[in-house]
Amino acid sequence: MAIKKLGSQTILFKNPPSIIATGSIVGPKEGEGPLKNYYDVILNDDLKNEKSWEKCESKMQIDAINTALNKSNLTEKDIDYLFAGDLLNQIISSGFAARKLAIPFFGLYGACSTMTESLSLGAMAVDGGFADKVICVTSSHFSTAERQFRYPLELGNQRALTTQWTVTGSGAAILSSEDKGPFITHVTTGKVVDPGIKDVNNMGAAMAPAAADTIVQHFKDSGFKIDDYDLIITGDLATIGKGIALDLIKKEGFDITSIYTDCGIEIFDNKKQDTHSGGSGCGCSAVVFTGYIYKEMLEGNVNRVLLVSTGALHSPTSVQQGESVPGIAHAITISNKKD
Amino acid sequence: MAIKKLGSQTILFKNPPSIIATGSIVGPKEGEGPLKNYYDVILNDDLKNEKSWEKCESKMQIDAINTALNKSNLTEKDIDYLFAGDLLNQIISSGFAARKLAIPFFGLYGACSTMTESLSLGAMAVDGGFADKVICVTSSHFSTAERQFRYPLELGNQRALTTQWTVTGSGAAILSSEDKGPFITHVTTGKVVDPGIKDVNNMGAAMAPAAADTIVQHFKDSGFKIDDYDLIITGDLATIGKGIALDLIKKEGFDITSIYTDCGIEIFDNKKQDTHSGGSGCGCSAVVFTGYIYKEMLEGNVNRVLLVSTGALHSPTSVQQGESVPGIAHAITISNKKD
Repeated sequence: MAIKKLGSQTILFKNPPSIIATGSIVGPKEGEGPLKNYYDVILNDDLKNEKSWEKCESKMQIDAINTALNKSNLTEKDIDYLFAGDLLNQIISSGFAARKLAIPFFGLYGACSTMTESLSLGAMAVDGGFADKVICVTSSHFSTAERQFRYPLELGNQRALTTQWTVTGSGAAILSSEDKGPFITHVTTGKVVDPGIKDVNNMGAAMAPAAADTIVQHFKDSGFKIDDYDLIITGDLATIGKGIALDLIKKEGFDITSIYTDCGIEIFDNKKQDTHSGGSGCGCSAVVFTGYIYKEMLEGNVNRVLLVSTGALHSPTSVQQGESVPGIAHAITISNKKD
Repeated sequence: MAIKKLGSQTILFKNPPSIIATGSIVGPKEGEGPLKNYYDVILNDDLKNEKSWEKCESKMQIDAINTALNKSNLTEKDIDYLFAGDLLNQIISSGFAARKLAIPFFGLYGACSTMTESLSLGAMAVDGGFADKVICVTSSHFSTAERQFRYPLELGNQRALTTQWTVTGSGAAILSSEDKGPFITHVTTGKVVDPGIKDVNNMGAAMAPAAADTIVQHFKDSGFKIDDYDLIITGDLATIGKGIALDLIKKEGFDITSIYTDCGIEIFDNKKQDTHSGGSGCGCSAVVFTGYIYKEMLEGNVNRVLLVSTGALHSPTSVQQGESVPGIAHAITISNKKD
């Protein structure tokens, strides 16, 4: 069989899967940010009538999924697979969300790269003919991430200026074999890249080389020129990581400055909202894509986007054992046209 | 496009991917078990010259992969994707293994169901035409799992009779579009099933309903009769879970008693090795398949197998928050014939 691969890491879909609907839900802080008019649901508090932040995060995934299902007049019975992941140990937000849904479930872990990981695998399932419709969903929650990866919130620890603010939010997208844009046309799957950063308060620096590696490889593989894109947007490099990624990509001969930004920069007003380097978390690129970018594409304001969610593949245990923080980034091309 | 789906949860591959090589590595206790002659590598200790059990587990994945690559005269450059996961927080065994390999990486989390999750997605990538060759790998380690999910080993806690012994081991399989058996012909992807078990020392009972659900669905979807199989083997239900699964499957009208066993039962001599209910962990079905079953298939002693890895989707946090332990099970049909 002919392999639909372009270069070493990129797939070109024969029948690009359509993103027929999305759902986005965010916490109160995100709901005060610059993209507040784009989200489907903004929570009044970060517990959502649940007894723990973890239960709230799981509930957000269910709500994001149901929002997308409602918009497309579908029910969970119409969905062949659920591709989901999150940041929590044993991805409990996703596992417990899947418990409430009678959909065959593939659990994923790509740290904050999980949104594009899920969209990559979901799109492969649809284009490969294994599914007619799939749901891809991820989430994060500031308070579940802080107490798991850093310090108890009650400690009131001072935050370093390089830190990022984990987004409270969940984004879901329904992919379908329907002939209706926007479409996922290309997938560039990342390798793990480890720049040797050991500062867990500087995730942007840890992930930037992986983002640069995937973006450069995408252009080499796909044959796209930079002008072919309206927007290139990474997941959560935030201010510090964005600068490093731009420099690394320039060194490889690609200047994407004019069309490049980062979801972690767009989601908060860093100065007013005191989020230091910017936003982060699986939910960051998930809600910026399913909320903001998707709706701008439907309006025709943006027609081709390279979405590059970025993940830091560490755990408190690996850090305690002296390991550095490797990064990974998965890119997908989303376009209003099929070709 | 025609969907290659049979019923609601099962895929039939048009060009069944071939499993061209496997690699298996186990710890000393597993190396004294009944399947000791089947493994490629048996470790002398559970550290493998590394400074921590976690680093040892990650190294085992690399060694399992390299063993499979060497057997098939391939290098990592020949591999399109790595599908990997494990039990540890943020799947660090897999992430740090992938750091050493220049292969595009999809991180997975399906608890102990991860081996068949990785084989399912890997087979979809090959049959879908997105890859020519992929590696699927998982691992677990008794000592990393105990201290993460249960108690510090130094505590010398007494183990309940329902507990299982997490397998120290890693298994890797290379899938290819080559026309050479054994082949993965069918994939039945599981839903999350929660029987409400809250006893974390009784994982077999928590996972058995999910295994039963997937196996029954597989027969309903595929049209196979029980006699079409030489062996049906679950991942790590062990003695207690196996009995429950058999009962539940019988209630649905399928009596698989004569050809059914469980990897967690086969891997240890429970009485001599004091493993109580039996073995468990991602590595359990991984090494039993890549070591024992695969080699028996190459010899022609077994010709069609339903491998059903089983996972318990909990975390210490979810248990502390009063949640029960939901289960999931993914089944794949492995056959020496393509049809």
